[in-house]
Amino acid sequence: MIRSRAAVAWGPGQPLEVTEVDVAPPQAGEVLLRVVATGVCHTDAYTLSGADPEGLFPAILGHEGGAIVEAVGEGVSSVAVGDHVIPLYTPECRRCTFCLSGKTNLCQAIRATQGRGVMPDGTSRFSRDGRMLHHYMGTSTFSEYTVLPEIAVAKISKEAPLEQVCLLGCGVTTGIGAVLNTAKVEPGSTVAVFGLGGIGLAVVIGAVMAGASRIIGIDLNPAKFAIARQLGATECINPRDHDAPIQQVLIDLTDGGVDYSFECIGNVDVMRAALEACHKGWGESTIIGVAGAGQEISTRPFQLVTGRVWRGSAFGGVRGRTELPLYVEKAQRGEIPLETFITHTMGLEDINRAFELMHEGSSIRSVIHF
Amino acid sequence: MIRSRAAVAWGPGQPLEVTEVDVAPPQAGEVLLRVVATGVCHTDAYTLSGADPEGLFPAILGHEGGAIVEAVGEGVSSVAVGDHVIPLYTPECRRCTFCLSGKTNLCQAIRATQGRGVMPDGTSRFSRDGRMLHHYMGTSTFSEYTVLPEIAVAKISKEAPLEQVCLLGCGVTTGIGAVLNTAKVEPGSTVAVFGLGGIGLAVVIGAVMAGASRIIGIDLNPAKFAIARQLGATECINPRDHDAPIQQVLIDLTDGGVDYSFECIGNVDVMRAALEACHKGWGESTIIGVAGAGQEISTRPFQLVTGRVWRGSAFGGVRGRTELPLYVEKAQRGEIPLETFITHTMGLEDINRAFELMHEGSSIRSVIHF
Repeated sequence: MIRSRAAVAWGPGQPLEVTEVDVAPPQAGEVLLRVVATGVCHTDAYTLSGADPEGLFPAILGHEGGAIVEAVGEGVSSVAVGDHVIPLYTPECRRCTFCLSGKTNLCQAIRATQGRGVMPDGTSRFSRDGRMLHHYMGTSTFSEYTVLPEIAVAKISKEAPLEQVCLLGCGVTTGIGAVLNTAKVEPGSTVAVFGLGGIGLAVVIGAVMAGASRIIGIDLNPAKFAIARQLGATECINPRDHDAPIQQVLIDLTDGGVDYSFECIGNVDVMRAALEACHKGWGESTIIGVAGAGQEISTRPFQLVTGRVWRGSAFGGVRGRTELPLYVEKAQRGEIPLETFITHTMGLEDINRAFELMHEGSSIRSVIHF
Repeated sequence: MIRSRAAVAWGPGQPLEVTEVDVAPPQAGEVLLRVVATGVCHTDAYTLSGADPEGLFPAILGHEGGAIVEAVGEGVSSVAVGDHVIPLYTPECRRCTFCLSGKTNLCQAIRATQGRGVMPDGTSRFSRDGRMLHHYMGTSTFSEYTVLPEIAVAKISKEAPLEQVCLLGCGVTTGIGAVLNTAKVEPGSTVAVFGLGGIGLAVVIGAVMAGASRIIGIDLNPAKFAIARQLGATECINPRDHDAPIQQVLIDLTDGGVDYSFECIGNVDVMRAALEACHKGWGESTIIGVAGAGQEISTRPFQLVTGRVWRGSAFGGVRGRTELPLYVEKAQRGEIPLETFITHTMGLEDINRAFELMHEGSSIRSVIHF
């Protein structure tokens, strides 16, 4: 058992308590990580707010980390002490029917226990004064020390700055992967990006990588347009500047609709607009944003019968252990400007400020340095 | 001007009048066809009922024909007098952006005038006692003589029986094409077919062609199961035999859901069930049925974010002039048992009986012989 600085979520709507917790040693097939840095993502805020019906408390949140292997449990062979890794909330066991299908990144090996906030053996490695604390998304990166199954860490180059590549643990990879892996955008395509937060900006980067000829950013907050343009958006549109619905604006602007659209907000009305902004015959819309519990998407089936396709993406369709090391290399080569996403850095003691900045809309990402 | 036996739809909800009409000669780029046989399809009944908000009257319905070229207008080069053809309600101009995209069969070259019930020059070739009659779906095969643009006929082998291959003008091709062209079902896949009418049975045939290992037919009418099994369905399910929703029944039956599902009815609730019956991570659902005006499909976006794909298919994604001749060859080789679909044949004078049989649910297809 070791002591670890951590931010504990005791209950919905409460600020995190920065304190010390106890971390039990890694069991067979598990690794102990020292988290060097972690991003603070909207999904952490969603769960902390209490709106997530699957949220469990007390818990240690955080899922966008950069870490170093501190110890390994029995039988661990794919990583060793000292390796640099990114924790994976979507693991890659390479054995389940999902991994072996070749069609999805949604490994199901430890899904049930991960959803219950515990390790695969059904227990937690975290406690405080003997009280069990839940794991979160299988990662719990808001603790300096955390324990993960071996199949849920991606080994990356030791040369890469963990304070930056931690962002590849969620948002940035999700956006880029949705373009390259899920939608498979072709060179010359027209792309619409709904929502220019962290995910949307990553979609812009992915669209540039894919060779899209036209990348249209859409947001209600025009303050986000400068950075979107800097990353490669060719046009930016504020729906409030138009009387017509945004799908009609885009159809008119692109002579029939876009080839690919991405919803990066989690708003079911925007998801519909994103689909209907697609070109008849071939336009494909990918949902990335997470909608509120129980909300539904709708459209007329004619939209699909006339050739549009509606799909979704989780962690960008990326197989973490296989592909994340390549994303890290891209970042090192300057192809993914992670520094652009990091608007704030702070120590763990200021983590509640990171949530405030997010709610104010004045940050893209805050990164916590342990 | 020639006289032609035809069935005229004078108004919504009225029986067709079998009578003689006047047919003007083909203009530049047009062909005059003698229709040898035509199927009677649900879409004809939908328009005749008045439920189709885009239905126009008076009109000559019919869109599933087998015909012989009787005369050609100026500049026609792709077909000649005596050629056997299938009229195409989805033409293939090979010049518009849709045809050139390589991504869709939805040629838009004559869409606007076709939707208005006239030829590309804005006028009709049909009249009765000087009163203009509308074309329907650009085909109007319920007339012994009909006029179509050259780009809307597929030239086929003269050896093929027009009384059978007429069915390739709509339903059978739509079902098979949805499997092969739209969903691109792979060998070994599990397939669910919702609705075992003409389209659904054609989907079964397509799934057999694609090498599906498991083909599950679903219908409320168990009388349809024998023919579905004969065509290759491996199992048939009546949702009324189960307490659980049909999507849950299928998920349980297939260890997580089907790889591909097809909605062949036009019921928006069934469309949802067909999507949700798909396997997490990779299941794809294709909508073929045409829903009533204004109806909408809904689901939780989580269904898509966890890897399901929702698409639709029109005329099976088939490019008529290019691919239909190959479908005819398949039928001639016995790979598409068209005779199984033809439950009734009759002369034009009995065409209203074909609609009655359809409403009773006691026919798959009635074929009218001129």
